[in-house]
Amino acid sequence: MEQRISMVTLGVDDLARARRFYTAIGWTESSDSTDDIVFFQVGGSVLGLWNRSALAEDSGVAVGDGWSGVTLAHNVRSAAEVDTVIDLARSAGAAIVRNPDATFWGGYSGVFVDPDGHPWEIAHNPGWPLAPDGSVRLPT
Amino acid sequence: MEQRISMVTLGVDDLARARRFYTAIGWTESSDSTDDIVFFQVGGSVLGLWNRSALAEDSGVAVGDGWSGVTLAHNVRSAAEVDTVIDLARSAGAAIVRNPDATFWGGYSGVFVDPDGHPWEIAHNPGWPLAPDGSVRLPT
Repeated sequence: MEQRISMVTLGVDDLARARRFYTAIGWTESSDSTDDIVFFQVGGSVLGLWNRSALAEDSGVAVGDGWSGVTLAHNVRSAAEVDTVIDLARSAGAAIVRNPDATFWGGYSGVFVDPDGHPWEIAHNPGWPLAPDGSVRLPT
Repeated sequence: MEQRISMVTLGVDDLARARRFYTAIGWTESSDSTDDIVFFQVGGSVLGLWNRSALAEDSGVAVGDGWSGVTLAHNVRSAAEVDTVIDLARSAGAAIVRNPDATFWGGYSGVFVDPDGHPWEIAHNPGWPLAPDGSVRLPT
């Protein structure tokens, strides 16, 4: 598994309020943002803001059950590579909380939880191709 | 405030176990790691593993009190810039849970918590100079 965090998604309780806050500190969202999710380019990665309950469900965890409210994503170059990384994490002792499968957003992903309860989505997103150095660049 | 996550620190309950897990998935830690904290280069950022209670205390939050178990850091180029960003976050409605001050690791930092409880450490770390593009590069 390459050393890369492609996205950090923060679970939020009021997306409009969160959007206002990050705008107020001077950030500009990507045009890939929607009414339901906000994306910011941060270096070669992405910061996402998404409804906390939706993020929990998508991450295979429960709000309040020791979950962090934060999910990390590691994007890879193919669906097959998602399977490989999830198998590797399983071998290393991670719990697989969502088996790799097609996603509602048109990609393919699975989720493992590390030994301390931190979820990692391993994702292939055809809409966000990785640069040779592994970075993600959103439309501005 | 520039759009950058310099470090994502995961609170862990057993650092040796966490270190073994990330090593088992193929990651190599930086020589800046110590017995107490582990650093991995991830793209132009850093993933840290640190004792959950120590991270909570350092982040001005309490374990189990809605805290995420994850703290984000945004590094800047001077102590004065730490003050500026903390003031900006305060103006935007963030709670300042640790006022900017000298740190035990030789830098200068403060912490704000966003409207959804996610802590951001704003830090000047003279030992980790930022590249012109804002990225951090650890020794290998």
